[in-house]
Amino acid sequence: MCHKGRAASKISRIERQIRGYRMNDHKLDALNLSALNRQGSARQTLTGAHAGTGPATDFDRWLVRTLLNNLGDPPFSIVLWDGQTITPPGVTPQTRVLIGKRNAIYKLLIDPELEFGDLYSSGTIEVEGDLVRFLETGYDCLAGRGKISRWLSALRRRPRANTLSGSRHNTQHHYDIGNAFYELWLDKPAMQYSCAYFPDPAMSLEEAQVAKMHHVCRKLGLRSGQTVVEAGCGWGGLARFMAKHYGVTVKAYNIAHEQVTYAREHAAREGLGESVEYIEDDYRNIRGNYDVFVSIGMLEHVGPEQYRELGGVIDRTLKDRGFALIHTMGRNREMCMNPWIEKRIFPGAIPPTLRQMMDIFEPWAFSIIDIENLRLHYAKTLEHWLARFEDHLDEVRSQYDESFIRPWRLYLAGSIAAFTTGSLQLFQIVFTRPKNNELPWSRAHLYKP
Amino acid sequence: MCHKGRAASKISRIERQIRGYRMNDHKLDALNLSALNRQGSARQTLTGAHAGTGPATDFDRWLVRTLLNNLGDPPFSIVLWDGQTITPPGVTPQTRVLIGKRNAIYKLLIDPELEFGDLYSSGTIEVEGDLVRFLETGYDCLAGRGKISRWLSALRRRPRANTLSGSRHNTQHHYDIGNAFYELWLDKPAMQYSCAYFPDPAMSLEEAQVAKMHHVCRKLGLRSGQTVVEAGCGWGGLARFMAKHYGVTVKAYNIAHEQVTYAREHAAREGLGESVEYIEDDYRNIRGNYDVFVSIGMLEHVGPEQYRELGGVIDRTLKDRGFALIHTMGRNREMCMNPWIEKRIFPGAIPPTLRQMMDIFEPWAFSIIDIENLRLHYAKTLEHWLARFEDHLDEVRSQYDESFIRPWRLYLAGSIAAFTTGSLQLFQIVFTRPKNNELPWSRAHLYKP
Repeated sequence: MCHKGRAASKISRIERQIRGYRMNDHKLDALNLSALNRQGSARQTLTGAHAGTGPATDFDRWLVRTLLNNLGDPPFSIVLWDGQTITPPGVTPQTRVLIGKRNAIYKLLIDPELEFGDLYSSGTIEVEGDLVRFLETGYDCLAGRGKISRWLSALRRRPRANTLSGSRHNTQHHYDIGNAFYELWLDKPAMQYSCAYFPDPAMSLEEAQVAKMHHVCRKLGLRSGQTVVEAGCGWGGLARFMAKHYGVTVKAYNIAHEQVTYAREHAAREGLGESVEYIEDDYRNIRGNYDVFVSIGMLEHVGPEQYRELGGVIDRTLKDRGFALIHTMGRNREMCMNPWIEKRIFPGAIPPTLRQMMDIFEPWAFSIIDIENLRLHYAKTLEHWLARFEDHLDEVRSQYDESFIRPWRLYLAGSIAAFTTGSLQLFQIVFTRPKNNELPWSRAHLYKP
Repeated sequence: MCHKGRAASKISRIERQIRGYRMNDHKLDALNLSALNRQGSARQTLTGAHAGTGPATDFDRWLVRTLLNNLGDPPFSIVLWDGQTITPPGVTPQTRVLIGKRNAIYKLLIDPELEFGDLYSSGTIEVEGDLVRFLETGYDCLAGRGKISRWLSALRRRPRANTLSGSRHNTQHHYDIGNAFYELWLDKPAMQYSCAYFPDPAMSLEEAQVAKMHHVCRKLGLRSGQTVVEAGCGWGGLARFMAKHYGVTVKAYNIAHEQVTYAREHAAREGLGESVEYIEDDYRNIRGNYDVFVSIGMLEHVGPEQYRELGGVIDRTLKDRGFALIHTMGRNREMCMNPWIEKRIFPGAIPPTLRQMMDIFEPWAFSIIDIENLRLHYAKTLEHWLARFEDHLDEVRSQYDESFIRPWRLYLAGSIAAFTTGSLQLFQIVFTRPKNNELPWSRAHLYKP
């Protein structure tokens, strides 16, 4: 569990101490950038909305050293708003982290995982150098950080519950930003906002997303004439692909209105109106019987409390010899989503452990026949997304300001780091009824050229 | 949990009722086989040690009908000791089950899963026709059987604990029967008493066991010069194969004395004394650091209470970029081993669910990268074993009597049924350290010719 109520009183005492220091110390005052010998975008950002503090004091420097020490003395230099630089002893810094305001230090001390994201997003913090590499080091630091910091982070809120109406709210938060934005950096034409499959890491994003769809269809043993139900279909790319390349009929459910509109338009344009039906509804309202159940990148938004119910939906919709596949982000062991991602990017999201997922399968005695972990494939997918996002920055800027762009960059870079450092996993799970003996004798058919 | 103490008082009341009927009914008396118009081995068996009951009464017939009804009226005819035959209404019987003694009916009513095995083993029950098909139907019946029968079966004992000394006792029970017996029907020369791999179901047992070893070695990414530790090495076939074909050095642990002796002799004979070391000791005493950890068919005997400790052994022995593989029987959901198998064949054995297995991985944040379910491969392996066992029956008879042969046949046939009906699974799980990014980009290398 993420909540550790017992730690709360201890934490609030520490918090009061820190806030006490702050009250006795300095008022926030104007940012003195002249002392900050920086240039380019970092300076632009730091001269933005958040300027304003006096020269750094001994106490400020002590707090920064405490922060760095608590993170295990990583290879970072911290450059304060007045240009003073603090580097852990004996360390060759790989990255310069520019802090534009005094209270950013307090916030980072209290909850680095949550506050760093907001401070970076607002431009109060700037990172010079490779953002992904910095975040990878950050993930490692947080994994090994001191007790106090862990107690403080334990104050985190619980994710928003995924009731029927809650799911709609949580999904709209992220997916209804606007199709045009996602079109700038997702694969075309399928628009898959989920991990691609790079059997050859030199593949383009488009090639890898097509390879992912074939991989999924082969794992499901898709045959012409079969019926498929898809739970959480995004912009509907997989449903169209299955109908077009495997001759199946698909009913695809999604609660995000803009995505469903897009999916319907594209299916009509591709002449797939007969074989693909997009239904703007929750997976819990799936009706009918199907040869195949598939769900790509939805489980993260379902919430473990609903897993048993999801299993029940699959149990009542899957035919006796049917196959099912769930593709989801996951964890090696139970932990909350990064609190900043959970708060700002994906409300209600929980990447589950395999143990947690068993609540989907065990009550209905589903038989798991194949699990593959594609962790590094998601890192590579995200690298493509981030590169395309940066390549299209001018177009993004024409629609959105920095308060949208900076958190989005951080979210993509941070997700790469989460996958490369092994904090996040990507599981594809294939399962069927326990008595289905019409199983392939090997997985070799997945790897035929 | 398997124990359902709450049901115990209700069950003992029902048992008293049944025993009460029995006391008021008949004393056990001589078996009248003249009325049983049967011939061959069935008759031979039934005339054996357990002859002796009077003509079947109305009450006997009512009990048999109750038994059949409780099993869902399967396609069996029950032939009683006096030749009277009872078939469920409207059913075309596929199998004739001959019951040689009155008290066998009571025993089957109380706990069919436990008692059937003993009654068949002693020859009190004979099955005419395809034993495997009969047991498959039996598994289906037991899965769907009535409440009373389930309450009664719930009285089952807990498996024997796998403490260090308990493990030795449990293992000796099964594996020290004598190497000569296993040599009659296992693959040569590796002698693998575990599921083979039949990418082509027409493969011979030898071909499939070699394919299994290659499959395991490829999943582990075995490279020349690496060090391997094997927990529970049986007769040591995989260790010799790895050293010979992949150029690795292996330390292989086993607590079964006769197996270790056999393994050492064969390694010396094959000139592998330098590269393979067999250690007669418990997996908990594994020392050293290795590139690879492998365990084939041991986990069933470890017991879920020890899984965390097993994970700790792997954690302290596996190098940073090491890979590990566990190959084990398993379940879709938690249930005890068939009580007869547990009592007579494999004391202490528990085929775990994937959820239970997470106690091995989660405490150490091991990252699962591949799970494959080879359920039907074990059914096919067992079919080969049973066929070879029957082919070598004369040689078996020269060493063992029917009280050994009949339970062994039942165990092999029943295991086939358990796998074909989906009661048992066979999982191969590959895992590594969470930060190991030296992962193959696909599993295609497992399927290269």
